[in-house]
This record gives sequence, structure tokens and C-alpha cells, in this order.
Amino acid sequence: MPFTFSPPPCLLPPKLLGARTPFLSPSSYSSASPTPPRMGQPARASKLMEFPHLVAPHRNTMVGLISAVENRLGAHLLPSAVPSDVEYYQNESGTSQGTLSIRCGIDSSPIDFILASWLHLEQATGAFEITNIACYLNSSTDVPHFQFELVQCSPTYFILFLDLIPRKDIVLHPDYLKTFYEDTQLESCRQRLDRLPEVQPYFSSSLYFRRVVSPTGILVSIKCDDGRAERIEEIIREHVNPIANEVAGIWMDMCIAGGREVSELERAELEKRDSLIKRKAIDMDLSSSMPKQFGEEVAGRVLRVIRNAYKI
Amino acid sequence: MPFTFSPPPCLLPPKLLGARTPFLSPSSYSSASPTPPRMGQPARASKLMEFPHLVAPHRNTMVGLISAVENRLGAHLLPSAVPSDVEYYQNESGTSQGTLSIRCGIDSSPIDFILASWLHLEQATGAFEITNIACYLNSSTDVPHFQFELVQCSPTYFILFLDLIPRKDIVLHPDYLKTFYEDTQLESCRQRLDRLPEVQPYFSSSLYFRRVVSPTGILVSIKCDDGRAERIEEIIREHVNPIANEVAGIWMDMCIAGGREVSELERAELEKRDSLIKRKAIDMDLSSSMPKQFGEEVAGRVLRVIRNAYKI
Repeated sequence: MPFTFSPPPCLLPPKLLGARTPFLSPSSYSSASPTPPRMGQPARASKLMEFPHLVAPHRNTMVGLISAVENRLGAHLLPSAVPSDVEYYQNESGTSQGTLSIRCGIDSSPIDFILASWLHLEQATGAFEITNIACYLNSSTDVPHFQFELVQCSPTYFILFLDLIPRKDIVLHPDYLKTFYEDTQLESCRQRLDRLPEVQPYFSSSLYFRRVVSPTGILVSIKCDDGRAERIEEIIREHVNPIANEVAGIWMDMCIAGGREVSELERAELEKRDSLIKRKAIDMDLSSSMPKQFGEEVAGRVLRVIRNAYKI
Repeated sequence: MPFTFSPPPCLLPPKLLGARTPFLSPSSYSSASPTPPRMGQPARASKLMEFPHLVAPHRNTMVGLISAVENRLGAHLLPSAVPSDVEYYQNESGTSQGTLSIRCGIDSSPIDFILASWLHLEQATGAFEITNIACYLNSSTDVPHFQFELVQCSPTYFILFLDLIPRKDIVLHPDYLKTFYEDTQLESCRQRLDRLPEVQPYFSSSLYFRRVVSPTGILVSIKCDDGRAERIEEIIREHVNPIANEVAGIWMDMCIAGGREVSELERAELEKRDSLIKRKAIDMDLSSSMPKQFGEEVAGRVLRVIRNAYKI
């Protein structure tokens, strides 16, 4: 599936803002095993981001990243604001569930919005567990966007997408590559993970998406052919978790330091490029997969919010 | 080494044109084992492209590709024209040898130039054999460039780069992706090779080069860990050879069909982008590696021709 599997980030316009909650409810920070929302029951807001169904290292990685972002960039962000029927949604039978949580940047911030989502998708072959954090910047800066997505396809097969997504054509702008990718040593993060025998490059079926990923982007499968789920959990705990935190830390440093001066012409170019990436994400992925997973009514509701947010 | 290992393509300006020969001497087409030029002796022009030192499947793949291009696009091309001391060059001891052969496009052709080169580099760890065909187009068209490069690092370890190099930023131009990469089914070529257990994605040390490669670009290592050189030769004969011919065929179809109408503004953008790719290739690779391999005098001679040709 292009852009791996999850809904792309969504900028929620003010008119749709509903209940305001932080990404994490206080209980999310506890190590106690979370309880999934009961099927067919609307989930309570405080339970939204507790990531039921996830194995502990997956959950802890997601919770840790969100906490790090909130701690470091909290002053840049408005409280979370998503209508409750999009904040949590499920299909008619309750077998597939999704959450969407968004914190927009304040006016003076380079952050456009930061999104966190979790999806539990029941398939004939088993369940998929998808967690996603996407941090999009506005055109006041050319600092790359941040993306973390971890997909559990089975207990012994994960896909990881971890990247700082370029805002410019690197072939035409080698100085952009130097500033944000070479000088930051991002390649060492990719290489550390690449050395593990269970980790292999993953090729998205979308040729467009392959081009969105940066030269140091981590897009890999993590697979244990001998079926040892505990080895995969160890890799997530010992390798994915620290590397994701390191990449997020590099990105947050960039955000706080700010990028180069952006001219009016560059702003327009950044907006055009960002907009194309978002449009492709929706056209290629969500427009077909959301109705299949959640039914027309729920998918329509979520997609309306996303399209409105993306301004497309 | 960025851009794998060989000299990048070189457009030789008319003032430097010397002896005019086709890429292949008649004897190159025979299956008889070629004789390497004697060390310390200037090579005869007719021997230039006989690819001494190569194992047969490597040599046959190179010869077959050159023949295919000459047969199909010969009417577009001027005869080969490279000064004899750049057409063949070697280091002082004669242990490293190189050839460079270029056929420029006629005025009415979209082909800028087609280059074929062969390098034999003696290293402390053994010899590298590198063959390279690069077909660059001019700015009258936005059809991608063609690149084939096969590097023998050892009898059981090869690196292959086979690609149609994009001339535009695909993120901004999804129609470019559709026309030249999706509609042409290039991905199936990449996937067929990717299925072999001996084939692994290869990550260039140059982050810039990673970005030059297309989304269907084949940049792989071919390695036989149990040391069976005959298996590697079989892969080159049975897989690399037909896939390289298929990709070259797709590219030649594009050349003959011609691209879309290119406006004056687009021409300038294509020229700027092409120029940056060429400049990076020389700065990152040849400027340091050529003097090491061939000594200052020989490297200077070859680099002067290349820089002049690249107009940088």
C-alpha cells in the first residue's frame, strides 16, 4: 500500500475543532497493559491514545516519541482538536478501529501540525497494527517534515518508515542535502539499522512514494523467518526505539534552530510541493482503502476532515 | 565511490575531436577471447573496445548493448571521436587502463552524446573491471538519460547500475513519472532481478547520487557468498544481460518516439539540472579518484577533456 498503510497527516481547520485534548491521556504513560475499547461502544476520549492491541515495545516507542515531541515542542502547539467521531472511529462490526489526533502549531511557529494516529485493521490473514506520527511544517521554513510509521503485519513481520521528508528537489539543491542530511549524520542512523540481518530495504508499490522518501530515509521490513516474535520485539526495543528518538531529536533541533530565510517565491514552491505530496497520499491510498476498511459512511466522515484539512 | 566507479559520461567538443572510430572494432563482435593491450605500449585504436580482462558474460553484455544502440540509433550519431591519448590511457606502470569512446548526436537528434568506457583498475585487494554506457540527451527533449554500469569487484562480487535517469523532479511532476516509468513497466525489470537471492540493494556512499537514481533504478550488488564465480556469471548471462537489453530497448523506443513538447523555460530547467548532475559526478568522484589511479599527468589529460566536454 502506498505511503505504507495509515491515513496521511491531516490539518484540521479551526471550524472543525471540537474537544481539545493532549495527544496522550495521563494513563498512557503508565506501563500497565492497556484495555482496548469495547467493540461497538464509542471510546472515551481519555482512552484514545492508549494503543490497545500493540505489543509493549511498539506501544512504548510510539508513546515515547509523542512524549518527546510534546515535551520539546509543546510551546509551539495548540491543544489537540479533532471532532470526537473522527478522533475515534471504527467499522460497523467494530473489528477495525482508528484514531486521529492533531495539534496545530501556534501562529508564530514553523509547525503546521503534528498528527498521531493508530489503526487496528482486521484482515482475513490477521490484524495489522499501525502507528504513525507525522510532523508537517509550514512554508515559513524549508526544514524537512518528520514521519514515523511502524506497521505490524504479523507478530514476526513489521514495516518501518522513519524519515525527514525533503521539501526541495535535492538534485537541484545540493546545499539542502548538505544542511539537513549530510551535516546531521542521518545516514549513520539508517546504517545502524541496516546492519541487522532481520532488516531489509522495503520497496513501496508506489513509485511516487519512493521519490518522496529522502536519501537517508529508513523504509525497511523487519522480519524474523524462524518465527521468533521475541526477536522482533527486541529489535524494536533495542534498535528502532533509540533510532526513532535520535531522528526525532535531530528534527526537533532543526525546528527550534529554524531554517534558512525563505523568500516569497520559495514559499510558493514549498507550498506547491507539499500540496502535491498530500494530494498523492490521499488519491493513492486513503480514497480506496478507507471505505474498504471502515465502510462508506465512516470513511466519508474521516476523509472529509482530511480533505478539508489538506485544502484539496 | 559515488556514481559507482567509472568516469562519468563526457561530451567532447568539436575542437578536441581526433580520430573517428565506431564504438566497436570488427573483431569485438567475434566470440574469440580478446588479447589485452601489452603493458606500457599504446593500444591500437582497433583494440580499444575489446574489453580485455572481462569474463565472457560481462564482455558479451557490454558488446551486445553497444551493438543494439549502434544498430538502432546509428543514424542519429556522428562517428566516434576522441583524441587517441584519451581514447586509451593507462598509468605509468601499465597496471591500470582506461578507454573512453564517444559518439555525439547529429544536430537534428535529441541525443547529446553516447559514451562507452572500460576501466581496469589494479588495487591492493585485486582488480576492478568496470564497463559503462551512458546515453545523455539534449534539452530538446525531456526523455530520461540511459545509464548502464557493471563493476566487477571480484569474481564473486559485482555491482550493477542500470537506470533511466529522470530529468525532472518527480515529486513536482507526477505526469513525468507516469509517462516514463509507470506506463513503461520498468518496475517489472527491477523486480525480476530483485527476486534472486544473490541480488541485494546497493546504497551508494553519495547521498546525492541516491537522489539522482530513478524510482525504478536498479542499483544492486550481486554477490555469491559461497564463492561460486560460475553462479555470478550465470546471473549476468541469464538475468543482467536480458534485463539491460530490455531497459535499453525501452529507452531507445522513447528516443525514437521523442518526448513531449519542451518550452524554452523547460529547456533552461533541464539544462540546469543536467549540468548539476554532471558537475557533482566530477567533483565527487573523478577529481580525486582519477589522479590516484592514473597519476596526475594522465588524470589531468582525461579530466581536462571531461571538464571541457561538460562545460564546467
